Amino acid sequence: MRLPTDEELLAELAEYVAIPSDSRSAPIETMREAAGWLAARLAFANGRVEETDGFPVVRGEWLGAPGAPTVLVYGHYDVQPTGELAEWTTPPFETVVEGDGVDAVVRGRGVTDDKGPVLLVLALARAMLEQDGALPLNLTFLFEGEEEIGSPHLPAYVRAHADELAADLVISADGAMWRPTEPSLSVASKGLVAMDVVVTAADRDLHSGRYGGTVANPVHALATLVASLHGRDGAVAVDGFYDGVDELTPERRAEIDAVDFDEEAYRASVGVPELAGESGYSTLQRLWERPTLEVNGITAGGRYSVIPHRAVAHVTCRLVGTQDPDAVAAAVTEHVRSLRLPGVEVAVHTDEGRVPAYRIDREHPAIRSAAAALEEVYPGQEVLLAVIAGTLPAATLFEDVLGAKTLFFSFATADEQHHAPNEFFRIRRFGEGMRAWRALWTGLAAWEPRGVAAVGVAP
Amino acid sequence: MRLPTDEELLAELAEYVAIPSDSRSAPIETMREAAGWLAARLAFANGRVEETDGFPVVRGEWLGAPGAPTVLVYGHYDVQPTGELAEWTTPPFETVVEGDGVDAVVRGRGVTDDKGPVLLVLALARAMLEQDGALPLNLTFLFEGEEEIGSPHLPAYVRAHADELAADLVISADGAMWRPTEPSLSVASKGLVAMDVVVTAADRDLHSGRYGGTVANPVHALATLVASLHGRDGAVAVDGFYDGVDELTPERRAEIDAVDFDEEAYRASVGVPELAGESGYSTLQRLWERPTLEVNGITAGGRYSVIPHRAVAHVTCRLVGTQDPDAVAAAVTEHVRSLRLPGVEVAVHTDEGRVPAYRIDREHPAIRSAAAALEEVYPGQEVLLAVIAGTLPAATLFEDVLGAKTLFFSFATADEQHHAPNEFFRIRRFGEGMRAWRALWTGLAAWEPRGVAAVGVAP
Repeated sequence: MRLPTDEELLAELAEYVAIPSDSRSAPIETMREAAGWLAARLAFANGRVEETDGFPVVRGEWLGAPGAPTVLVYGHYDVQPTGELAEWTTPPFETVVEGDGVDAVVRGRGVTDDKGPVLLVLALARAMLEQDGALPLNLTFLFEGEEEIGSPHLPAYVRAHADELAADLVISADGAMWRPTEPSLSVASKGLVAMDVVVTAADRDLHSGRYGGTVANPVHALATLVASLHGRDGAVAVDGFYDGVDELTPERRAEIDAVDFDEEAYRASVGVPELAGESGYSTLQRLWERPTLEVNGITAGGRYSVIPHRAVAHVTCRLVGTQDPDAVAAAVTEHVRSLRLPGVEVAVHTDEGRVPAYRIDREHPAIRSAAAALEEVYPGQEVLLAVIAGTLPAATLFEDVLGAKTLFFSFATADEQHHAPNEFFRIRRFGEGMRAWRALWTGLAAWEPRGVAAVGVAP
Repeated sequence: MRLPTDEELLAELAEYVAIPSDSRSAPIETMREAAGWLAARLAFANGRVEETDGFPVVRGEWLGAPGAPTVLVYGHYDVQPTGELAEWTTPPFETVVEGDGVDAVVRGRGVTDDKGPVLLVLALARAMLEQDGALPLNLTFLFEGEEEIGSPHLPAYVRAHADELAADLVISADGAMWRPTEPSLSVASKGLVAMDVVVTAADRDLHSGRYGGTVANPVHALATLVASLHGRDGAVAVDGFYDGVDELTPERRAEIDAVDFDEEAYRASVGVPELAGESGYSTLQRLWERPTLEVNGITAGGRYSVIPHRAVAHVTCRLVGTQDPDAVAAAVTEHVRSLRLPGVEVAVHTDEGRVPAYRIDREHPAIRSAAAALEEVYPGQEVLLAVIAGTLPAATLFEDVLGAKTLFFSFATADEQHHAPNEFFRIRRFGEGMRAWRALWTGLAAWEPRGVAAVGVAP
């Protein structure tokens, strides 16, 4: 069949990226505009915008394959904030193509997370319907507008529409291949809980001379708090943080050590003087299997000569195993409070979106079909079973509410500056992704979900 | 004599404040506009704007009192940044009068630091010349535009014009009375050295999931650095920081303890849950006699889910005794470097403006004349000899280059939110200040500086 060309997809992507659907700061009108634009691309499946208590979702379904499995395709139309505009080499909401051939990329906020990876699925489905007249299985579509803020309203929406969204499998167009060098599938992703630690002292900023030495400085107090969150060994030094984290087995260590991973190349790719983290684990063991606590930023005072009256740290914990997001938030809160720093008041505000870690068994038919599809598109390359160290909140939700596992099948790659300035997407992934999704759908068409369940899918 | 009215001075101040002469961010055109406006108020003394390698200075002189001492009047026309506009209750560059009678204040950026206190001196001099036909002593004027950024270009200017600026005494219209409850004079001010501590790791912000646990987080490293700068006793924990700081004598402790100072009222006035600082000293002992190291702010990342690639702390040290600003900067730099935190690079950039602490002997004729002037304006109130815990970089410069001591004789008050949002100035200080400056000039007219020097002014 004739697949849509890169040029056709780039033209669509340019329109889509131009809608600055930053879910942290955009007005609802902008979010509705992005949703409406996406719904129009989904006309073949009765695409439509449905309101939630937050930003709307985009829905659709094509159910013309009776007897075949039903797959829910998930993705999101919101994007991360741009961050410092000065750090962008091109305007964030204009797509710019750079490079040639297999190295060609398109830049812009959201191109890889998640606008490009979603568009290629819709373009493929339209092409298959036009040229084949049908799809090999039933598809329903759910694209949300709050993924980058922790999906606060998705659970209520999915619960309220569970019957309509019923599916044998969810395939997520969000996520990312681990790296550009080989095809990979994810069999796990980390959970997430985020919070603000707020330290206050005086009721206003004070002149650092005229009041210096008489009141506590919230920046010093916050620094003491943040410094206390990790030990010198790089481990998180919060009592109870590791509850639910199993120690790595020798077998799993060996399995990870067997992955072809060039630490020096990785170090160079991120530009750090040396890799760092929790001692006792290799870099890849830490990335795939260990929970983290990162301060994403501090907001406090400025450059001029004051004792600031307020200092705030935003903290994100990435979770593994059976770590409970609420328990982790409570542990961090208790840790911070127990320090009892003089002269300041400390509060912790935990974000609404809380996501436990997620796993899919490597023998699940979805993983087997996806691996076969990737082997078809990337002949001669072994498909790596990797871990997404990022968080995909929807996966846990779909398992809880719909009883369906989620396969991550994004054609983003993890090095494409997700969440950072100069986000990009490899243009070759358009074609690779469409061929792979086509092969996956075709492979899954023969799947009999109840039969598989009967022989026992691992939890 | 008839002094200018509050209404006349408020009208002038409104014009002056409307020029947003923030020396950290304003373009040179704005700074020239402020300088030109001020020079026009100085027409009686051949007021003029003179260029420097930075922002211009305003100069003037009235030398019609042969045989009498010559006094250099110093002040500045630049102001601090506004900080967060949302924290201002009125627009920062519009003067707004609030309250009645002795409680009446005028709000706006620079009203008390240093636009109001300068204007009242010029208005007084004009009134005296108009009504008396002469001034009792010779006056030269020097107003700079870089006080709030550490006066980087003033030293070169003063050295190049030392002959023209020669004076027996400098009187600074910058500074502040310690508090509104009694008249006070400052016999010391703290020095200043400021620096940026910059921690970097990756070459870009990284997704906190997809890279979490593999690279050092500059925010954690900076927090560890900042937390290490003070001990649990509140003292600065930097080797060599206290070099040049004499331990407080029992006599000085007793003298400070004898000052009527209500710790609870002070605590309530700044809104902190409790006062805090270096142990072993009372609040007022710390404020007046102990050096400080304050982090004025941290710039790092933001609220969204990244590992920031850069974290910066701005640090200000206030110095006492004979602490050497260069040595303090070197000590902090060495301290920061010696921590050798893994996975990050650390740099310290010290600001250009570096000022040692300053003292004037309490028996100096300028202090005696000033005390007499204040007793005349505030009958029945004892004049308190206090310390300005802030920094007035020009004083050291004038002593070094002109051989003249500086008397701080500002009618600002230290609680008027200098450097913070909602800066204000007590309107009653216009009249009090003009009467006091008139009495001071009259008192100093009889001074024979060389005679005084011959009997030994303390160093």
